[in-house]
Amino acid sequence: MLGKAKIKQIKSLEYKKFRDEFGLFVAEGEKLVSEILQSNLQIDSLFCLPGTILPNHNIQANVISESEMKRISFLKTPSAAFVTAKIPDRKINISHIGDSLSLVLDGVQDPGNLGTIIRLCDWFGIQNIVCSLKTADCFSPKAVQATMGAICRINVFYVEPDDFFNNIDKNISIYGTFLDGENIYDAKLSQQGLIIMGSEGKGISPETEKHVNQKLCIPCFSDSATKSESLNVSVATAIVCSEFKRRKFL
Amino acid sequence: MLGKAKIKQIKSLEYKKFRDEFGLFVAEGEKLVSEILQSNLQIDSLFCLPGTILPNHNIQANVISESEMKRISFLKTPSAAFVTAKIPDRKINISHIGDSLSLVLDGVQDPGNLGTIIRLCDWFGIQNIVCSLKTADCFSPKAVQATMGAICRINVFYVEPDDFFNNIDKNISIYGTFLDGENIYDAKLSQQGLIIMGSEGKGISPETEKHVNQKLCIPCFSDSATKSESLNVSVATAIVCSEFKRRKFL
Repeated sequence: MLGKAKIKQIKSLEYKKFRDEFGLFVAEGEKLVSEILQSNLQIDSLFCLPGTILPNHNIQANVISESEMKRISFLKTPSAAFVTAKIPDRKINISHIGDSLSLVLDGVQDPGNLGTIIRLCDWFGIQNIVCSLKTADCFSPKAVQATMGAICRINVFYVEPDDFFNNIDKNISIYGTFLDGENIYDAKLSQQGLIIMGSEGKGISPETEKHVNQKLCIPCFSDSATKSESLNVSVATAIVCSEFKRRKFL
Repeated sequence: MLGKAKIKQIKSLEYKKFRDEFGLFVAEGEKLVSEILQSNLQIDSLFCLPGTILPNHNIQANVISESEMKRISFLKTPSAAFVTAKIPDRKINISHIGDSLSLVLDGVQDPGNLGTIIRLCDWFGIQNIVCSLKTADCFSPKAVQATMGAICRINVFYVEPDDFFNNIDKNISIYGTFLDGENIYDAKLSQQGLIIMGSEGKGISPETEKHVNQKLCIPCFSDSATKSESLNVSVATAIVCSEFKRRKFL
């Protein structure tokens, strides 16, 4: 059921170069595959173990054995369903990006963090994520898995930061988190604008910092002389998004 | 410099059984090792590459080669410093656990999530984390790395949940997050008590739920018909801790 050439193609999708070449990405697990089947993403191939029940769809499933599933899976424990889907061609509408709250990621490296951020944006109703070209690819297997399906719904765009910031409306509020910013709990926060989050190791880059017009910080509550210097980027993004959205109904 | 027996012992510390047997855990990376050297944790062995500069300490460092470091490292990219340290014997003071805010983890499985939660507790000044016996071990290599040093400062206790809840003060506020709880942004939140967070797949278990006296929820802001059903547990913990601590100065 599963030829050598297909296995080779699927395994190559671990790498961005081949995802770009084939225009495909992979997703695994019954729940995630079900979400993708029910989304408007285009399916390339669907593989499942005998007896796997998936929601209504029009795709011809390839029933494969457990040992075949092991050969294509990127998980330690392969699941019962595996899909390759087309990477959607989502175009950024730069003139409307500041109409609601959008997130800008300036170099987030870890695909697990990126996927977790996409998932929490889905929760907080943040529809658009704009990533610098140095940010991890949202269609890598690890990132897709960490989104838990949110990749079907959230638009993730990759841009050259200077191009992007020079072309958006000059009146947009651009928030960024820094260790010396204003306490986010006291700051005036809008329901329109951009929230920039930096990379794991380096935070927001100097080139991006110059576009920020409102510096925020998440205050540290530890009394200890030695303490953590920062928060994990997905955790920090969650706290910032929570605080912005909390204000929506005040 | 590095004997076969020591390498074997170090590699065995990936597993809880051997961490318990030897009473040791590992940590890697110059920054994390520096924090451990400056903490009150007891060092067993310190290994570093030639020329590595670490802060003042009284430990005899074993200078090893890169190929030796590769043999003991748990990281994809081995670092310049590696330490084995004694697992501290921290005793829970059950009669004072509700004097401040403490966290209870009911079965968090992923060591990366656990480490990230320990790190954010350090940020939010939450000194004590009480874990059910089903929760991942905080001294596994992956959990220790994800704490980014917070493991030196935060007390993590493992308890049998029913024993624990039956022995604490009956007047303690016990908060838990559920999909049908009260909107956390509107709820009355105390600066004393316990915050329970459930496992990745199953949330708070029925046995633990019966001890909760204040059910909370993080509201979902998505308007979409299909949306994420939940948040990653470390992300949810961050949002809850942020909201509790924000109230401190109101």
